[in-house]
Amino acid sequence: MAGTDRSRPDVVLDRNPVVVLVRPQLGENIGMVARAMMNCGLGELRLVEPRDGWPNEASAAPASGALPILQAAKLYNSVTAALEDCHKVYVTTARQREMIKQIMTPKAAVRQLRQQIADGMKTALVFGPERTGLESDEVALADTVIEVPLNPSFSSLNLAQAVLVIGYEWYQSGDDTPEDRREVGHTPPADHGEIDAFFERLVDELDTVNFFWPEHKRQAMLRNLRSLVNRLEPTQQDVRTLHGIVSALIEARQRRKGMKKG
Amino acid sequence: MAGTDRSRPDVVLDRNPVVVLVRPQLGENIGMVARAMMNCGLGELRLVEPRDGWPNEASAAPASGALPILQAAKLYNSVTAALEDCHKVYVTTARQREMIKQIMTPKAAVRQLRQQIADGMKTALVFGPERTGLESDEVALADTVIEVPLNPSFSSLNLAQAVLVIGYEWYQSGDDTPEDRREVGHTPPADHGEIDAFFERLVDELDTVNFFWPEHKRQAMLRNLRSLVNRLEPTQQDVRTLHGIVSALIEARQRRKGMKKG
Repeated sequence: MAGTDRSRPDVVLDRNPVVVLVRPQLGENIGMVARAMMNCGLGELRLVEPRDGWPNEASAAPASGALPILQAAKLYNSVTAALEDCHKVYVTTARQREMIKQIMTPKAAVRQLRQQIADGMKTALVFGPERTGLESDEVALADTVIEVPLNPSFSSLNLAQAVLVIGYEWYQSGDDTPEDRREVGHTPPADHGEIDAFFERLVDELDTVNFFWPEHKRQAMLRNLRSLVNRLEPTQQDVRTLHGIVSALIEARQRRKGMKKG
Repeated sequence: MAGTDRSRPDVVLDRNPVVVLVRPQLGENIGMVARAMMNCGLGELRLVEPRDGWPNEASAAPASGALPILQAAKLYNSVTAALEDCHKVYVTTARQREMIKQIMTPKAAVRQLRQQIADGMKTALVFGPERTGLESDEVALADTVIEVPLNPSFSSLNLAQAVLVIGYEWYQSGDDTPEDRREVGHTPPADHGEIDAFFERLVDELDTVNFFWPEHKRQAMLRNLRSLVNRLEPTQQDVRTLHGIVSALIEARQRRKGMKKG
């Protein structure tokens, strides 16, 4: 997906959950996590014992411009140290564990996160290492486990994708973009008077060649055609275009006849 | 996120949207797309002119076991060929375009997709090349544009992430009974091949009278007209009616000319 509008303001990055990566292996993945975080308006990254040390040059290119997040990332030597100032901790895992935990879908989890943040709490989303995931003792630190409902026979997400899915739900829960809208560009929608006028003209032209035949089917044909025209939901420009098409089709035949005569 | 429970049954992969990648560049990305698809219960992958050819060995490792999707992927030499049997086409783009289109969030789009599939339609999710995205003429082919609400100053997702976000919403919507659906009556919806044929005939007729003038506006006019035709969402019967109307309008002028002559 391409395109970023740099004229629009940054979202506010504070008062959002902290992202904690526990023992991440590849610098590339840390960079991709930063990119996904930036996509989703998450700004604070904490790294617990990254395998290849920190900073890690391999993270820069995959971050695709999310460098401020990498530059501000903080390094910790234990999970408990990274979570010390957090009131509520969420871990993501697809594993079934013998532990009594609140388990939520991403959708439900972000609703709860919003409420906790509104109540003044600091929150954290914790992600384990590639492949192995979090240790049971680390899962035990969490207040809530997030399980992403996915194909049960193929549910494993890579690190950046797991961050993206949770971050995406987080962003959606705070966003008020209309779910469904029509982009009409510069011309306003046609009103029923304009649509009626076009429809009547079209019917007049079609009547000259007895298009609506046989007579007993005329009303039904008119209704279906009217319904079809309505479904266009045309703009004023569209109605002008439709008039032009009717004129042009008529002229096309005239021209062709003329050529045959000539 | 680690962990996959192989003891649980596969989700059913048919009757799901087709994923179409247009001119994808890196085989690695195609592999990551296959993995994201498998995560989300999407099974059918179509590739339009992949830059490095197909099959591409570089796709295997990043697919992380989603090889059946890669092995079954089909190759096409144009977007229209890849969409020929599809009734409803969705494109994802973060670009603002001067086109009249229905624009939906992923959440609203997957609700509509479920309805359309329940109504017997074949659907496609189309993704453009890394970085450049789809051409305007390709966006014009779509019935619906999906825009993912994300940080407006950093909204660009990579290819596999875009597929994952839409696929994730698709999967989430799977447990819900559709809230409403579209009544299509007795005649099936026209597919893109049928709509293409009508559109080409219409353009041919209009070209005989230089309707698309001046020449430098031709492409934009064609796009807008194509977009208008798509918005009809015609049934097969509607397409026959539209053909009849074009013929009748041409004949109307012929008859009138005839009457004048007579």
